Amino acid sequence: MITVAEQVAVIGAAGYGGAVAAAILRRHPSLELVAVTARSEAGRRHDDLYPRYRVPLVLDEFDADDIAARAQSAIVAYPHGAAAPAVKALRERGLKVVDLSADFRLDRARYERWYQTHAAPELLGDAVYGLTEAHRDEIRTADLVAAPGCYPTAALLALWPLREQIEDVVVDAKSGVSGAGRDATQTTHFVSVTENVQAYKVEGHRHAAELEQELNGATFTFVPHLVPVEQGLLASCYVTAYIGEGELRDLYRDAYEGEPFIDLVDEPPGTDEVRETNRCRIRVTVVGGRVIALAAIDNLWKGAAGQAVQDLNLMLGLPETEGLE
Amino acid sequence: MITVAEQVAVIGAAGYGGAVAAAILRRHPSLELVAVTARSEAGRRHDDLYPRYRVPLVLDEFDADDIAARAQSAIVAYPHGAAAPAVKALRERGLKVVDLSADFRLDRARYERWYQTHAAPELLGDAVYGLTEAHRDEIRTADLVAAPGCYPTAALLALWPLREQIEDVVVDAKSGVSGAGRDATQTTHFVSVTENVQAYKVEGHRHAAELEQELNGATFTFVPHLVPVEQGLLASCYVTAYIGEGELRDLYRDAYEGEPFIDLVDEPPGTDEVRETNRCRIRVTVVGGRVIALAAIDNLWKGAAGQAVQDLNLMLGLPETEGLE
Amino acid sequence: MITVAEQVAVIGAAGYGGAVAAAILRRHPSLELVAVTARSEAGRRHDDLYPRYRVPLVLDEFDADDIAARAQSAIVAYPHGAAAPAVKALRERGLKVVDLSADFRLDRARYERWYQTHAAPELLGDAVYGLTEAHRDEIRTADLVAAPGCYPTAALLALWPLREQIEDVVVDAKSGVSGAGRDATQTTHFVSVTENVQAYKVEGHRHAAELEQELNGATFTFVPHLVPVEQGLLASCYVTAYIGEGELRDLYRDAYEGEPFIDLVDEPPGTDEVRETNRCRIRVTVVGGRVIALAAIDNLWKGAAGQAVQDLNLMLGLPETEGLE
Amino acid sequence: MITVAEQVAVIGAAGYGGAVAAAILRRHPSLELVAVTARSEAGRRHDDLYPRYRVPLVLDEFDADDIAARAQSAIVAYPHGAAAPAVKALRERGLKVVDLSADFRLDRARYERWYQTHAAPELLGDAVYGLTEAHRDEIRTADLVAAPGCYPTAALLALWPLREQIEDVVVDAKSGVSGAGRDATQTTHFVSVTENVQAYKVEGHRHAAELEQELNGATFTFVPHLVPVEQGLLASCYVTAYIGEGELRDLYRDAYEGEPFIDLVDEPPGTDEVRETNRCRIRVTVVGGRVIALAAIDNLWKGAAGQAVQDLNLMLGLPETEGLE
Repeated sequence: MITVAEQVAVIGAAGYGGAVAAAILRRHPSLELVAVTARSEAGRRHDDLYPRYRVPLVLDEFDADDIAARAQSAIVAYPHGAAAPAVKALRERGLKVVDLSADFRLDRARYERWYQTHAAPELLGDAVYGLTEAHRDEIRTADLVAAPGCYPTAALLALWPLREQIEDVVVDAKSGVSGAGRDATQTTHFVSVTENVQAYKVEGHRHAAELEQELNGATFTFVPHLVPVEQGLLASCYVTAYIGEGELRDLYRDAYEGEPFIDLVDEPPGTDEVRETNRCRIRVTVVGGRVIALAAIDNLWKGAAGQAVQDLNLMLGLPETEGLE
Repeated sequence: MITVAEQVAVIGAAGYGGAVAAAILRRHPSLELVAVTARSEAGRRHDDLYPRYRVPLVLDEFDADDIAARAQSAIVAYPHGAAAPAVKALRERGLKVVDLSADFRLDRARYERWYQTHAAPELLGDAVYGLTEAHRDEIRTADLVAAPGCYPTAALLALWPLREQIEDVVVDAKSGVSGAGRDATQTTHFVSVTENVQAYKVEGHRHAAELEQELNGATFTFVPHLVPVEQGLLASCYVTAYIGEGELRDLYRDAYEGEPFIDLVDEPPGTDEVRETNRCRIRVTVVGGRVIALAAIDNLWKGAAGQAVQDLNLMLGLPETEGLE
Repeated sequence: MITVAEQVAVIGAAGYGGAVAAAILRRHPSLELVAVTARSEAGRRHDDLYPRYRVPLVLDEFDADDIAARAQSAIVAYPHGAAAPAVKALRERGLKVVDLSADFRLDRARYERWYQTHAAPELLGDAVYGLTEAHRDEIRTADLVAAPGCYPTAALLALWPLREQIEDVVVDAKSGVSGAGRDATQTTHFVSVTENVQAYKVEGHRHAAELEQELNGATFTFVPHLVPVEQGLLASCYVTAYIGEGELRDLYRDAYEGEPFIDLVDEPPGTDEVRETNRCRIRVTVVGGRVIALAAIDNLWKGAAGQAVQDLNLMLGLPETEGLE
Repeated sequence: MITVAEQVAVIGAAGYGGAVAAAILRRHPSLELVAVTARSEAGRRHDDLYPRYRVPLVLDEFDADDIAARAQSAIVAYPHGAAAPAVKALRERGLKVVDLSADFRLDRARYERWYQTHAAPELLGDAVYGLTEAHRDEIRTADLVAAPGCYPTAALLALWPLREQIEDVVVDAKSGVSGAGRDATQTTHFVSVTENVQAYKVEGHRHAAELEQELNGATFTFVPHLVPVEQGLLASCYVTAYIGEGELRDLYRDAYEGEPFIDLVDEPPGTDEVRETNRCRIRVTVVGGRVIALAAIDNLWKGAAGQAVQDLNLMLGLPETEGLE
């Protein structure tokens, strides 16, 4: 039983994912957000950067000792590469950590193939992949959880109950622009995005490594697309699998029964149905012998910060849904 | 050689497709737009409904005799079902017709399975499927051309050079809202569309019948999605076919060499690259043994009115690109 | 002290304003949402129409006796004209009512000039204009409150502290499309809205009558504009008033000190800073002798449903901010 | 009479304004676009940066001698400060120049108050303010024309016929994001823009200096707003002037009779009515004794590149509308 609020910090709260994490924690009934840090915006108030999130804290420079003195757990929302040293410093000081970056999602070989030399490989063995619906029990006892990428979250939730039967799958995913982060680039310029739909990284997106690791053995094609949406991600999955409509529905119903954030729905889910929620709406059907599995999430919530808080709730023995409804 | 302008009418010029047809014809160097008609907006000026298209004509009620007295050809932009009688009346009066509806795209069996009882089946034998890049020679001598649907246009152009090798294909298509037409519905309400991406008609879209008819023998899955874009359509096609990257590129280069409206490009095409043009930008590659073919068009131009004018140019012996560049 | 939850109904919960009212009440700590009704969508589940609001109720046909048997208060979100009879029926059965329509905002003369013959004029004397910041004490003891229109809410909050000094004011207001309601029309079609900014009802918008009534004596010009935004409203007010910058800031600080939903800010407020909140962000300054007062709200929250709940909290003796933060 | 095409260069064709200038000139019947230059994107093909404009040229580094060897006139689309030296170099080599920057719009005192020390003050005496409808005759004989800013273009066209009667005017202007330029900043990030409407530079925008200079003597307030639109600008002008409705309409009709790009319209103009055209749609009315003048333009066309070509046509003795319809 939790009797007092646990203190939490968000490391990297100026970016979109970290900002949402701070917003969720601010209203969390059992957790107290005590510190937010930022690399480039330190010194500014968080509620000046993000007025509607109403987090009444000043963004600090990151100092592991200071954070350790004030908090017992942290959500780290740095980019990959920058995250590992911060996570390491916090873990060394005993904090439980959920990391939003890719740094602890993959085994070392996969990580170093897609990203770079790992800065804290000794921690990889402890890290649990934070897709709650797939790894709940491990998360409960973990001290370090790697929250999945937004694309893998949607695709894996769309496919998880079917993972043993998949022979081959095409994942055509559409993401809103917040998924590309707060950095101002030609890609995220309003003029580039509006009235545009475009695939990118067709030859290989880093998130595919997560799919490959979790969907062990299935062959798949993953193509991300950018759409003129702020928050929202739809994964349309086309699966070669020998299963009938009824069996398919039973499989998903059984797998997701009691899942607090999964909605199995009868119509194709729209991303606006889950905006600013931690929910994933999934619809599966068989058409012409092929399974079509559609999953919609908010890329910043279930695809990042919401899922991180879901993980953290489990790690701290709190009800999984606290602060998320 | 053309010495005098040919007179053309647009039947159904209040809808988006017909309006663009009128806009293109107004500026066409060899054709003269002499009449525009509308069912519900008759009596209004076209340039009041669509100021930026600057068509200085009043929308008339449709009267086949009147049109026949003024024009030698017509683009019909009525909804399916309503188109067939109008087309029939104009053909009986000797006009060459390009029809934007589905009424003359399919053989009778396919049409009546997906749509309704055909109102002018006797004309089906004369109708040519107006995908210029696939049926150019037949179009030149046709008196009745059925312009393809917007989805089939993009998907077929993405796949056409590969059609003999396709075993199986997934077409995940994303369309702007103008493709849903000018009728005001919950689906086209700004509030429903913005911040949303959603699949629809997963179990079967009428346009799939066109794919099936043209891609004879290939099995395919076609899922359309609505995205918050005004004009633009991207077809992402995932093809099982045994072909190497080099051979694939050669195949497309040979097939589309000299095609005036096809751009084979090296980066994934965005719909904003073709907005308000008759172009189709295509990118093919092989990833993990699967062909990924992406095609971007403007659904109202190459996916409807632009292609109709391209067809009409051929039917009238004009240069194929006139009025379209 | 409140010891048991008060039961509340939302009449007209299929429209945007009523739907948000239901969403807010579902999570309200001291109020229990027991019924939602709708005219055209009765029989459907509310969370099927609005999945992300997660209101697990079926929309009923409106029956005053039934509502009176289940609830002690109601928010009525019918269009003007339809609201008055429903309000009357509920008041006759003793329910406290907040009405979102225009039916009880204006004195009879003004109402009948701008709208139509009033269906329940005998109630007008009891109705309080529900701009909390201006009429808090009256609202506390009222049984019938008329929540202000979205435009007047923003404009009046921008101007209220200055109301005695205003000689003349121009209100140039920009509203998101949800303000136009859920009806599908050419005006609300995505294709009409996107890439467009347009004034409307330049010669006189009904909301101007509210400004006139509340800003007694000032002459003003009010021009609403539609912008391609889902939720959000910015009122830019240009005021001829003889006051210095320092005095102006003091005036607003004094007037709004302690107001729970008013933020006086130093930079021009953006509508995205208040999205899905009940807040109004205001910035006042003097430029070239003219006061520029900018106010941003969410038209469905502070401009409609949020303000209605704020009113209801006061009417029921609850903390004003309950359920709204 | 023009017998051969005049060669033109666009200096700074990687930005939005210069890119549209290049797009217009590529299709101009009497002018030949022979060179495009860019500062940061030199070496890239223009049609790689802007595929839909289809300008088949490589962006060069700017070299005045090289440009002078190839072209007789130029449109300079550099930012203020960078433009003056380029304009000077081209003028010294005898080219006629239209400059899109602010460098030659203002007298020296105004320029140096709002911008910086002027780099080529000796040219200021020769420069003509390129608002065609106001200064047509001077433009015809000018060698250097400064195309007005987008905001002043709309506001001045809305007000020009009334300029003698204006006592006081509020200009509340709403601009699409392309007006902020191609630089990727937090301000132009899709996530910052979408679902947002916001005023900026309330205390003084540089464009106000142009209004002040041209509307000699009138006092005015000018507040620009950013709206989630790609191309489009609406100036809503609220004028204190003693004039009746009939006289007002006559005044505008007389002033703009025969103007090829001005449309006086009866309904409030929307920016989508002028998108990608050189037109300005204006609507004037008197409401409650105040003149309301609304003007809609495309900020990149009539507000920048289109107007520049209109100017250039006049300078070269070509029909004013060539290449612009």
